[in-house]
Amino acid sequence: MPSSHSALPSPGPVRLGPDARAALRPAVAGIDAGFWHTRREVNARTSLPQGPGLLESAGNLHNLRLAAGTAEGEFRGAYPFVDTDVYKWLEAASWQLARGREETLAAHVDRIAGLVAAAQQPDGYLNTWFQLRENGKRYEDLRWGHELYCAGHLIQAAVAHHRTTGRTELLNVAVKFADHIDSVFGPPGSGRPIDGIDGHPEIETALVELYRETGERRYLDLAGYFVDRHGHGLLGGEAYCQDRVPLREATTVEGHAVRQLYLLAAAADLATETGDTELGAAAERLWHAMTTTKTHITGGLGAHHDREDFGDPYELPNERAYCETCAAIASVQWSWRMALLTGEARYSDLVERTLYNGFLAGVSLDGERWLYVNPLQVRDGHTDPGGDQSARRTRWFRCACCPPNAMRLLASLEHYLATSDEGGLQIHQYVSGRYAGGSYTVRAETGYPWHGSIALTVEESPAGRPWTLSLRIPQWCQEFRVRCGERTYDQGDAPVTDGWLRLTRAWEPGDRVLLELGLEPRLTAADPRVDAVRASLAIERGPLVYCVEQADHPGGGLDDIVLDPSRPLAVKHRPDLLGGVTTVVAAGRRRHIPDAGWWPYTSAPAPQGGEPVELMAVPYYAWANRVDGSMRVWLPTC
Amino acid sequence: MPSSHSALPSPGPVRLGPDARAALRPAVAGIDAGFWHTRREVNARTSLPQGPGLLESAGNLHNLRLAAGTAEGEFRGAYPFVDTDVYKWLEAASWQLARGREETLAAHVDRIAGLVAAAQQPDGYLNTWFQLRENGKRYEDLRWGHELYCAGHLIQAAVAHHRTTGRTELLNVAVKFADHIDSVFGPPGSGRPIDGIDGHPEIETALVELYRETGERRYLDLAGYFVDRHGHGLLGGEAYCQDRVPLREATTVEGHAVRQLYLLAAAADLATETGDTELGAAAERLWHAMTTTKTHITGGLGAHHDREDFGDPYELPNERAYCETCAAIASVQWSWRMALLTGEARYSDLVERTLYNGFLAGVSLDGERWLYVNPLQVRDGHTDPGGDQSARRTRWFRCACCPPNAMRLLASLEHYLATSDEGGLQIHQYVSGRYAGGSYTVRAETGYPWHGSIALTVEESPAGRPWTLSLRIPQWCQEFRVRCGERTYDQGDAPVTDGWLRLTRAWEPGDRVLLELGLEPRLTAADPRVDAVRASLAIERGPLVYCVEQADHPGGGLDDIVLDPSRPLAVKHRPDLLGGVTTVVAAGRRRHIPDAGWWPYTSAPAPQGGEPVELMAVPYYAWANRVDGSMRVWLPTC
Repeated sequence: MPSSHSALPSPGPVRLGPDARAALRPAVAGIDAGFWHTRREVNARTSLPQGPGLLESAGNLHNLRLAAGTAEGEFRGAYPFVDTDVYKWLEAASWQLARGREETLAAHVDRIAGLVAAAQQPDGYLNTWFQLRENGKRYEDLRWGHELYCAGHLIQAAVAHHRTTGRTELLNVAVKFADHIDSVFGPPGSGRPIDGIDGHPEIETALVELYRETGERRYLDLAGYFVDRHGHGLLGGEAYCQDRVPLREATTVEGHAVRQLYLLAAAADLATETGDTELGAAAERLWHAMTTTKTHITGGLGAHHDREDFGDPYELPNERAYCETCAAIASVQWSWRMALLTGEARYSDLVERTLYNGFLAGVSLDGERWLYVNPLQVRDGHTDPGGDQSARRTRWFRCACCPPNAMRLLASLEHYLATSDEGGLQIHQYVSGRYAGGSYTVRAETGYPWHGSIALTVEESPAGRPWTLSLRIPQWCQEFRVRCGERTYDQGDAPVTDGWLRLTRAWEPGDRVLLELGLEPRLTAADPRVDAVRASLAIERGPLVYCVEQADHPGGGLDDIVLDPSRPLAVKHRPDLLGGVTTVVAAGRRRHIPDAGWWPYTSAPAPQGGEPVELMAVPYYAWANRVDGSMRVWLPTC
Repeated sequence: MPSSHSALPSPGPVRLGPDARAALRPAVAGIDAGFWHTRREVNARTSLPQGPGLLESAGNLHNLRLAAGTAEGEFRGAYPFVDTDVYKWLEAASWQLARGREETLAAHVDRIAGLVAAAQQPDGYLNTWFQLRENGKRYEDLRWGHELYCAGHLIQAAVAHHRTTGRTELLNVAVKFADHIDSVFGPPGSGRPIDGIDGHPEIETALVELYRETGERRYLDLAGYFVDRHGHGLLGGEAYCQDRVPLREATTVEGHAVRQLYLLAAAADLATETGDTELGAAAERLWHAMTTTKTHITGGLGAHHDREDFGDPYELPNERAYCETCAAIASVQWSWRMALLTGEARYSDLVERTLYNGFLAGVSLDGERWLYVNPLQVRDGHTDPGGDQSARRTRWFRCACCPPNAMRLLASLEHYLATSDEGGLQIHQYVSGRYAGGSYTVRAETGYPWHGSIALTVEESPAGRPWTLSLRIPQWCQEFRVRCGERTYDQGDAPVTDGWLRLTRAWEPGDRVLLELGLEPRLTAADPRVDAVRASLAIERGPLVYCVEQADHPGGGLDDIVLDPSRPLAVKHRPDLLGGVTTVVAAGRRRHIPDAGWWPYTSAPAPQGGEPVELMAVPYYAWANRVDGSMRVWLPTC
């Protein structure tokens, strides 16, 4: 199989094809210390190893055995997509195996991949729900059946397994299923019996990757067919299913957030592989519409619990933010593909914000519990609904899409951090480790995001040929300084274009660059059309969004506090707290609200004054790891 | 059947039993002109007459014929409670028949009541969904089956039919079903086979009324049993089904709003009929929790689309306010019963607010279209979901609970306006017409709510015996004046206690009272814990909440407007607009929001300035009767 990067470590989730029209090509960052290393170790040591047991007790593996005829009993699970929990775990474990042979994990992967293979039907079809519960009916309920969605996750798992282990057992299963799908689905006149799409996009981006892995062009064509058949009413025309309007004509993101985002990841893939500029332009347009009007400050996406969908422009509620963990993951996947396609730094700005906030909040510090929805507020007196939509961390969900999805992103995170092109190496995200792309290798040491210094050392460089080391200056960054050889630049004179600080020279091994990003804490306001946060401010520091939690404010709730924005913010690193976090303390008051009788609406002047109170803020990603209680990202100023 | 008011016009939806411990007894207000007369005429001339055709085309009547074996075909409709659309229409039509014989309407009632009777099974059971679709299974899915809920609406229709026409056909059907239910449901040890409750309360208040109509104590006992079995986990313990906590222990309203409110109406009924002070205290406590923390300014109830439930305290969103029309109706029913039980004016304060705003917004001005949900904001760029949860008025719903519910409230409205006790007559709501209760009759003339003058003339009075005419001074009212004989009082010296202006004298026919309620428009703020409306104000005048609509603000949207609260409000009556409304004009500006690039969160100072704009506000109840567009109740001040 062709690859221009055959000398590099095994590629990650996105491996560009030989004809790809990408501005940038993925590079790898071997993370070996610091913030994300810690999170990945928790993933490797706790979350991933617990997967097989959870999949067993939830019934997912049992269903595969039933389908294979090697067990007896009833189908277990409430959804037609329960197989994907297995596939996403297999994908996550496969990425993990790339980091070194782990015998126990490898044995689980072999065993579970074997269960998957055994459950496949002779013609390639595989979906335990339909095989076992629907009497073998196929493709009769494309709106809700998730059969192609499941196939997509199987394909992604198989590609990961093949890429990291070189093994073909799972890839053969995926290819057989993909060939089956290709024999069934196609446009009128293609000779295929069904002109249809899946209500939940996912197969599309998976098929592009299968094309990239196998070189088989049919899969790319099938992906393009599926993407373009969305929006033509084949499923009834609902936005929920991404069927109201074709992507090429859409003006904003809409419907079920995860469905929209997976579809857009495929659009970016297709634009990259085929040079389809119209599709690329549509993806850029929709990304802009999303970030300007439908994205929470955490990078979280999805405004409605009901139907899990995007809301209207600027409809960004706090306590009812949906912000599904899977939507954050899908957003990273899409934005990363946009970064590769266009080379623009803003896509990685959103990736950074999402990783550190909207995504990571979904994973508990101990790696054992999860949030499906990621609200920006939990009220005093909150009555928790329990279940999947709980604001309390949960061991596993009835619809367990998020946990293994988070595992696969964490296990493959080194592939979302850097790129290369003919002119050099681009560092998108700052970690301690070794960035390697093309013929360039750079070593980084940093205490980011707690500290703003990133020390970079060139390790490998083509001899005597100048190239450009590009460093992303984050969108949130107001002040920075960079020392490169004899020169020191700051935000006033540094060679920054569209978010990229570009340092060009004939680098030699041992050359050093010191980037210092200013991490002064800041108070952030929203566009005034975001009604939900009017006259409120959020605390941020570096890439981190902060929140206040009940646990740090004993003796009262959080719904009566008021921030005083005129007072300075104080920063304190607390190694003892929440695995080690930098806290930000703001001044405020706890207002005294007089008893207004039975009706809380009045023409009387608002109550002023109140007790002074220190508002201690912790990073949002770390919330809900102590006692249950209220929480706020946005702090009222009146 | 016993009644202490046998000389009065036929009683309304609440007829107290002979032993009732009510502070007040329902009186009647014959509405013959003015605001509500117009709304009731639309109901009588358009909404009600269209009912039979809509019930026919939606399949409800067809289902009854199928169950009776007089038609062939498939069951139609998506829910197990479609029969209630028929029952609520029958109830509404029955109240209408009390206002004078209408041959066409009476013929429809006879015909449709006949269809209901024919569909009943020999043992009394009646539910077309279970008879036709579920192969006659009964009471196996109490959580979702709605069988007792349907029975409740049948009983209420039958009681209304009997009260207003004296006819017994429908009452016999209801009694037979109630007796059947009484033979099936009961506590352990009662000899009944099922210890259970319905997931959707409604049977409870209906059974109390059946007791009142028939004098049969078993129905009251059964109602008490059902009320008290909620909250013990019989349906799995969900708040949604009112099964998480017993009412007697509950500290706030929760779960599905309509279910909660119907259950609380029954609690008030039971406290009234049995003297159960613990239950009465629980109802008072929950009413206070609801109004102080979970009620929109319109009186609307229900914060979540998802599960149609109450939110957390102070969680009162605008664009996603659910505020189901049925919840407003249920709130009126409950509050009215609380007013009877306690005699307190605040309950009728909420009834007034709800009638003029949260309820009436659900009915179009022409009586032909409806809102199921009643949001307080529709954004610029709103993508309407269509269907039942649309912010656009709809001819009929898949779940058509609201339209016939609104019809029955409008058709019986004269029964929610006044009461009497041994000491006199209490006027709760101001209409043009004749208030008659006990041995007291008072005539009223008013242009309320557009005008604040209410001219009252005593028409009948017990000779020579002093009694008290009590006039509710609305909670919203800051200034009033009342002339009674030679005396004139104002808010400084009038004999007002707890919202009641009490005028005691030996009234003689022809005695006059002139009450003048100040109707200066006002700007209203919410408790600061209602985050959704921080730094925003609502325009109100008298009992009316106002909103701004896109239709009155061409040339721009509503999401960039800012109210200037320092400028005076101007009032203008517009007989040409929306059937005749008083408008309120406020001063504001349309802010200029600079392009912030792709990320809408910033540390930069907020943009100031903007174009001056006149904000023309119309009563909220009249919104969405012109072109589709954006709307706001709460106006930002920054």
